[in-house]
Amino acid sequence: RRQGLPEIVYGPGKTSEEIAAIVTSLLAGCEGPVLVSRVEADVAASVLGSPELVSGRDQGEYDAGARLLVWRPRPAGTVSLTVVSAGTSDGPVAREAAGVARAIGLDVTEHADLGVAGIHRILGRAEEISRADLVIVVAGMEGALASVVGGLVAVPVIAVPTSTGYGAAFEGVTALLAMLSSCAAGVTVVGIDNGLGAALAAHRLATTLDRRASR
Amino acid sequence: RRQGLPEIVYGPGKTSEEIAAIVTSLLAGCEGPVLVSRVEADVAASVLGSPELVSGRDQGEYDAGARLLVWRPRPAGTVSLTVVSAGTSDGPVAREAAGVARAIGLDVTEHADLGVAGIHRILGRAEEISRADLVIVVAGMEGALASVVGGLVAVPVIAVPTSTGYGAAFEGVTALLAMLSSCAAGVTVVGIDNGLGAALAAHRLATTLDRRASR
Amino acid sequence: RRQGLPEIVYGPGKTSEEIAAIVTSLLAGCEGPVLVSRVEADVAASVLGSPELVSGRDQGEYDAGARLLVWRPRPAGTVSLTVVSAGTSDGPVAREAAGVARAIGLDVTEHADLGVAGIHRILGRAEEISRADLVIVVAGMEGALASVVGGLVAVPVIAVPTSTGYGAAFEGVTALLAMLSSCAAGVTVVGIDNGLGAALAAHRLATTLDRRASR
Amino acid sequence: RRQGLPEIVYGPGKTSEEIAAIVTSLLAGCEGPVLVSRVEADVAASVLGSPELVSGRDQGEYDAGARLLVWRPRPAGTVSLTVVSAGTSDGPVAREAAGVARAIGLDVTEHADLGVAGIHRILGRAEEISRADLVIVVAGMEGALASVVGGLVAVPVIAVPTSTGYGAAFEGVTALLAMLSSCAAGVTVVGIDNGLGAALAAHRLATTLDRRASR
Amino acid sequence: RRQGLPEIVYGPGKTSEEIAAIVTSLLAGCEGPVLVSRVEADVAASVLGSPELVSGRDQGEYDAGARLLVWRPRPAGTVSLTVVSAGTSDGPVAREAAGVARAIGLDVTEHADLGVAGIHRILGRAEEISRADLVIVVAGMEGALASVVGGLVAVPVIAVPTSTGYGAAFEGVTALLAMLSSCAAGVTVVGIDNGLGAALAAHRLATTLDRRASR
Amino acid sequence: RRQGLPEIVYGPGKTSEEIAAIVTSLLAGCEGPVLVSRVEADVAASVLGSPELVSGRDQGEYDAGARLLVWRPRPAGTVSLTVVSAGTSDGPVAREAAGVARAIGLDVTEHADLGVAGIHRILGRAEEISRADLVIVVAGMEGALASVVGGLVAVPVIAVPTSTGYGAAFEGVTALLAMLSSCAAGVTVVGIDNGLGAALAAHRLATTLDRRASR
Amino acid sequence: RRQGLPEIVYGPGKTSEEIAAIVTSLLAGCEGPVLVSRVEADVAASVLGSPELVSGRDQGEYDAGARLLVWRPRPAGTVSLTVVSAGTSDGPVAREAAGVARAIGLDVTEHADLGVAGIHRILGRAEEISRADLVIVVAGMEGALASVVGGLVAVPVIAVPTSTGYGAAFEGVTALLAMLSSCAAGVTVVGIDNGLGAALAAHRLATTLDRRASR
Amino acid sequence: RRQGLPEIVYGPGKTSEEIAAIVTSLLAGCEGPVLVSRVEADVAASVLGSPELVSGRDQGEYDAGARLLVWRPRPAGTVSLTVVSAGTSDGPVAREAAGVARAIGLDVTEHADLGVAGIHRILGRAEEISRADLVIVVAGMEGALASVVGGLVAVPVIAVPTSTGYGAAFEGVTALLAMLSSCAAGVTVVGIDNGLGAALAAHRLATTLDRRASR
Ligand SMILES: Nc1ncnc2c1ncn2[C@@H]1O[C@H](COP(=O)(O)O)[C@@H](O)[C@H]1O
Ligand SMILES: Nc1ncnc2c1ncn2[C@@H]1O[C@H](COP(=O)(O)O)[C@@H](O)[C@H]1O
Ligand SMILES: Nc1ncnc2c1ncn2[C@@H]1O[C@H](COP(=O)(O)O)[C@@H](O)[C@H]1O
Ligand SMILES: Nc1ncnc2c1ncn2[C@@H]1O[C@H](COP(=O)(O)O)[C@@H](O)[C@H]1O
Ligand SMILES: [Mg+2]
Ligand SMILES: [Mg+2]
Ligand SMILES: [Mg+2]
Ligand SMILES: [Mg+2]
Ligand SMILES: [Mg+2]
Ligand SMILES: [Mg+2]
Ligand SMILES: [Mg+2]
Ligand SMILES: [Mg+2]
Repeated sequence: RRQGLPEIVYGPGKTSEEIAAIVTSLLAGCEGPVLVSRVEADVAASVLGSPELVSGRDQGEYDAGARLLVWRPRPAGTVSLTVVSAGTSDGPVAREAAGVARAIGLDVTEHADLGVAGIHRILGRAEEISRADLVIVVAGMEGALASVVGGLVAVPVIAVPTSTGYGAAFEGVTALLAMLSSCAAGVTVVGIDNGLGAALAAHRLATTLDRRASR
Repeated sequence: RRQGLPEIVYGPGKTSEEIAAIVTSLLAGCEGPVLVSRVEADVAASVLGSPELVSGRDQGEYDAGARLLVWRPRPAGTVSLTVVSAGTSDGPVAREAAGVARAIGLDVTEHADLGVAGIHRILGRAEEISRADLVIVVAGMEGALASVVGGLVAVPVIAVPTSTGYGAAFEGVTALLAMLSSCAAGVTVVGIDNGLGAALAAHRLATTLDRRASR
Repeated sequence: RRQGLPEIVYGPGKTSEEIAAIVTSLLAGCEGPVLVSRVEADVAASVLGSPELVSGRDQGEYDAGARLLVWRPRPAGTVSLTVVSAGTSDGPVAREAAGVARAIGLDVTEHADLGVAGIHRILGRAEEISRADLVIVVAGMEGALASVVGGLVAVPVIAVPTSTGYGAAFEGVTALLAMLSSCAAGVTVVGIDNGLGAALAAHRLATTLDRRASR
Repeated sequence: RRQGLPEIVYGPGKTSEEIAAIVTSLLAGCEGPVLVSRVEADVAASVLGSPELVSGRDQGEYDAGARLLVWRPRPAGTVSLTVVSAGTSDGPVAREAAGVARAIGLDVTEHADLGVAGIHRILGRAEEISRADLVIVVAGMEGALASVVGGLVAVPVIAVPTSTGYGAAFEGVTALLAMLSSCAAGVTVVGIDNGLGAALAAHRLATTLDRRASR
Repeated sequence: RRQGLPEIVYGPGKTSEEIAAIVTSLLAGCEGPVLVSRVEADVAASVLGSPELVSGRDQGEYDAGARLLVWRPRPAGTVSLTVVSAGTSDGPVAREAAGVARAIGLDVTEHADLGVAGIHRILGRAEEISRADLVIVVAGMEGALASVVGGLVAVPVIAVPTSTGYGAAFEGVTALLAMLSSCAAGVTVVGIDNGLGAALAAHRLATTLDRRASR
Repeated sequence: RRQGLPEIVYGPGKTSEEIAAIVTSLLAGCEGPVLVSRVEADVAASVLGSPELVSGRDQGEYDAGARLLVWRPRPAGTVSLTVVSAGTSDGPVAREAAGVARAIGLDVTEHADLGVAGIHRILGRAEEISRADLVIVVAGMEGALASVVGGLVAVPVIAVPTSTGYGAAFEGVTALLAMLSSCAAGVTVVGIDNGLGAALAAHRLATTLDRRASR
Repeated sequence: RRQGLPEIVYGPGKTSEEIAAIVTSLLAGCEGPVLVSRVEADVAASVLGSPELVSGRDQGEYDAGARLLVWRPRPAGTVSLTVVSAGTSDGPVAREAAGVARAIGLDVTEHADLGVAGIHRILGRAEEISRADLVIVVAGMEGALASVVGGLVAVPVIAVPTSTGYGAAFEGVTALLAMLSSCAAGVTVVGIDNGLGAALAAHRLATTLDRRASR
Repeated sequence: RRQGLPEIVYGPGKTSEEIAAIVTSLLAGCEGPVLVSRVEADVAASVLGSPELVSGRDQGEYDAGARLLVWRPRPAGTVSLTVVSAGTSDGPVAREAAGVARAIGLDVTEHADLGVAGIHRILGRAEEISRADLVIVVAGMEGALASVVGGLVAVPVIAVPTSTGYGAAFEGVTALLAMLSSCAAGVTVVGIDNGLGAALAAHRLATTLDRRASR
């Protein structure tokens, strides 16, 4: 049975030594997955190669697309999540959401490059998308993808505005406001670029599903 | 089995005649609940008393606290929702969320007046709250209740900022930003005063739960 | 051949006497259409019934949906304009755009209620919409309709954000920013609720088309 | 006959290898112009010198002023565009608009350094400017040039606010708001520094003009 | 010789009795002009008819256009001020500036309806305007008039943004920012709708001029 | 008896030579503590090693956590201050507040890592915290800690918003607004990251306490 | 000895019946002062005249200037508070602060009309002001009074921005930001118009003073 | 007699070669002062040493404090200007204002470090300051100095907000808004850090003074 929220260390501003020390202590002090987010490749290599972790029981893995270090990932369970993203620059945030969700045991499918200016590509995926237990939509610019997807599926839609875009995108504020104002009712929103937050919201939902299944 | 989103008419800016006509046509054209939101008592009375509706098969009910007109409510299903609110002025939004959720078949419990300045009252309810399948948190001012509840329960938390407050509450913008920045990870947010949106997000979750149960 | 911009009086804040006097003088002092915008029905009746205008050569007409008074409308020319709008509350702005455009000689078609949450309704109209010489898109909330239509047609798209919506619509600011950030390239934008501005932008385009045709 | 929107790759954040690969595949997969925007001189040289492109059928050109790489530009057609800009720091955005428009077949004229504080210089060009089929106005600071030009010409005016300026220019927000509030009716606006967007709006207009001409 | 700042009572939020009392005491306690600003016609009549003022030595006058009550105006001196305004809705603010300036002894000329979309009307007045010792420019919408006038005259230009406009005028904020960012160097700005502030800035200048003349 | 505000030099933007010179002159010209804030370790070393200071009567100390240089600290008096902070990234601001307060003679206790998502950790410290004469609360993100602590203690609470956080934390603006809107009445606030300001507010309070004690 | 925070009912949005019922229950359920804030005169009269309160043991009083209803005020203790305000329109907020503080047992002195444009009036009161245990400064417009007073006294200064002012006062936001940025270090701030919050902050200080005195 | 505005080149973003070329051409093409603003020391040296300028008739000077290059400065005339600034970090902006004003012939006096938290220092200079023909006030943080000086002198006061400060200074926005809302009537404002703009406003005033003197 799923338990509480996983341990997630925020990488930025920490040295690889500090990260290694925190991870070592978390691996010892608790069960379940341990993650470090927003880690660049070189820092990741140096964390993974640190003596205390190399000699440890659990070996970590680096997911470069998601900029994520993962120890003790959960195997994929029965809760299915689809992560949909709009443009290529939304990729890192989408992959962070997908990577975290996967590490904590969701069954994740990803659909990238579904900008609303090419509505037919989205429609071609509609049926597949709507089969998931819940959907995370990642989009910058005007964030319209959340409304379109929200209108196509009946399951929970968690929208993640990204800070990509120019002109009047204002570092994600435009997408954030647009998603909060979505004409597709029942869409919920997390903070700008907060792929991790969306994955943890998915985890909360999986907790409920698991709890009900186990009754 | 639960189907799509319910029909919900937005009351403000419509005359009772217009509302009665729309409702009549929705009752004829589809199955399931029909709701009208943000209706004052006098308009409600006049809608309920309109000839076409009085003579119809389905009789409507007015929920004054939620400012909601409801026809053909669904019976309470097995999905449980708790609606928690902070101050008395958050009441109307909390009751809208609860009223809509109830009308579309969720099993709703309400906890009011749980401001974070009186943290012990919240803690006294923590166990009860955490038993629900999901939680809606309604709060204005600094919206801190979402963070506290998000830290206490492992299930989905949907936060609704309200436009109440003064000083620097800026019509709900402060609560909105605070909830989006919640240190309790995985909390998701809807627009200011959008009790209805939160209830529909709950409906989306119930759709997934029902769908899995029926497999 | 089309000439300059038409005479348009801004109604709000003027008495019916003042409006009648201005219109009388404009009818005498120039050729072509004379319009008064944002006029309520009672003021319109009183302007149309004023002695100086009743006895004049040109009789005015009131377009209630567009809240527009029109004298000497141009006959529909060959330039075709489609006005697309998202929700019922975007109606008045869409009708102002359509009404002004029609009065100054464009051949106008209107499509209402094409919210992006129901993407299939939009697609059903796509071919028809793309036949126009240009398209005006009127939408509030998150203004996503401009992106979807911008992706469907190759002709000029002028987006008008409206002040409708709640939650985080911020009186049209959200739709304005979203439209300026549209991922559908080449969409241009006018101010909030500025149906008139969009119609005059259409007039500018018609001027170019006419000028080229008459060469 | 003009077809759809051209292929435009956004340069920033891509390596010259990535750009070369994308361009190679676009040149193979579609007809018509292929552009890469916002490319610095060194990256451009390295893209143009990459083996796959050197050996290709279509040779690219670099427009340093517009920071643009262009393959298969269209020859100038009959649609005339004038690009007017206010200060020297608006130059790059104006040249991007002009460069893109030229590459996709518009007949482009440029007028630089027409700040409104020297109104007589603008007036000296007024007749020439008003001969174009449409005008793009590029200005930062208070963006007043859009209003002045909008008052001088009857054809479409597309305003591009730039992020230049200091004091209270707020990275282009002041110019953006000013252009959206222009007292010269029918002016439309694109996002801050979005010269490309303005050029594509011009392309949309040219599409309509060509389509009518070809009937 | 000119002395300090005149006594000016801010009318809004005060009863006619309160105003009459304050004015009576100011007339007794100091020399020079006494003004009350932003007074509606009925309040003005009732202040002027109050027993204590009717029986006083100095009789007040009401300037309806400027919404100003004036006692003991100074005769026009040698310092000349021109007040230029853009649209009809900028009128009240322009007249407040002119009315206050006149009451405190400046030699005031007014030019209304000089919107920048009709640049030739402004140019026709340029020589006359530039003869003044200083110029106040009153404009709403995009406030471009300040830049144009600032470029035409070498004397001090004080810009007053007004709260008129729609679309993206944001209650005068757009005009305020635009004026602060004016490309015409050396233009200074006062708060939104602050005609009074501009007149007092003019008074400060007149103080310096008088002081130097009297040396 | 406590006297006026201490001398505090703002380090950023000053060379170590400039700092050494200012400190030397302050040590000579006044009595009591002399502090330099926001000094990095290398600059600090170089200031402390500068000839004029090495040869001086008073030797300085560097507090790396607080980024503070201190000469002539006051001994701890009887006024007790507790500094409470939410997350690890709030640490530097909390330590600046604590460091300054300690240097000017308050009796300081620190409690770190008391985020509201873990409410039980806060409650475990409640009694200890409430024993202080006043409390400084340092928090970023949604700043909810100020409300929770404000509800737990009856003594003065000074809230310091920090610029930490992401998503919608907007560089501390969200925490600032939330703290100003705290539902725990009587909480006061200083600027973003202004640990020093909070410490000086504590100093003001200590001044009153000392003054009364010495009567 | 002082105990916790007093009971304060927020009047707006409540009927006189609701207020009377709440007050009756508070008077019965606790000891110490009971206050109702922001009550207009007619509502106050009707509350005071309600049967349950008329027949009660404790008789209430209405303080019209402070818009405050008070039952069981505490006698003035030894803690002295000075409330300083800038303009006449800051009066109601200053009187709310003073009224609440007085009702809960502080020894309150008020100084009104101390705008910084007349710096000599402030200086004339400086000595008297600095004798208080703490000072509340109430100011709108640019809120400069907080900085001046903060520079004149060594005791705690709590600044209350008010929503008065025009031009660029933005409903108190300008004063709020200015006070938070005060160059007089150690000044703390409460929300816009929050006289009550300032009084309760004073109460917190008095709690500490009393607690220390009683040791 | 003074003529038009001086030639001022904005340095940032230009190479020393570009600056040298522009200056050479301006020196040849017009009479009167030529200035380059915001030039760092090394660029300045390289401009001054460029062959075309070294061999020219007029030799330039670099004013490091004002970051200004000056050719053909005007001798000091009879118009006196006082530049007052608040903190040390306001220095560069104040010196830019003073440097430009001096170069174009004003008789400039500077008073630095007059923060309002030390009101007595300002008062000690009041008489001297008020002797000038006009005053420029440069201040960041809460910008209160403009109000205090505005209340002390009767002559024109031009306020320059600076981007210095922290906490809630928001890069000068707080000071800008505060100065626009100054309770000292008749103060006018230029953009953030715009010392140059203030100097040119002073030049406009000098133009009027000279023009009147020469009649
Ligand atoms: N990429 C991320 N985005 C948002 N929050 C994160 C991220 N990574 C970690 N966190 C959160 O940051 C906190 C850990 O911070 P720290 O203790 O500094 O490692 C936990 O609350 C995590 O849930
Ligand atoms: N409904 C409207 N929306 C926007 N602008 C308008 C509207 N009606 C009139 N105007 C503009 O307002 C100006 C006329 O204002 P007025 O002189 O006050 O009648 C003209 O520039 C019109 O183009
Ligand atoms: N300079 C530019 N300004 C704005 N949009 C651009 C620019 N260059 C390319 N784009 C758009 O960016 C998208 C291509 O992004 P990408 O796939 O990352 O190359 C297309 O939609 C282009 O229309
Ligand atoms: N870390 C800090 N945060 C906020 N204000 C500071 C800080 N350090 C010094 N100050 C203030 O900055 C001013 C000194 O600035 P300066 O004269 O530039 O050293 C004094 O008013 C100090 O109270
Ligand atoms: Mg998108
Ligand atoms: Mg709350
Ligand atoms: Mg919409
Ligand atoms: Mg410009
Ligand atoms: Mg204007
Ligand atoms: Mg926090
Ligand atoms: Mg004030
Ligand atoms: Mg200052």
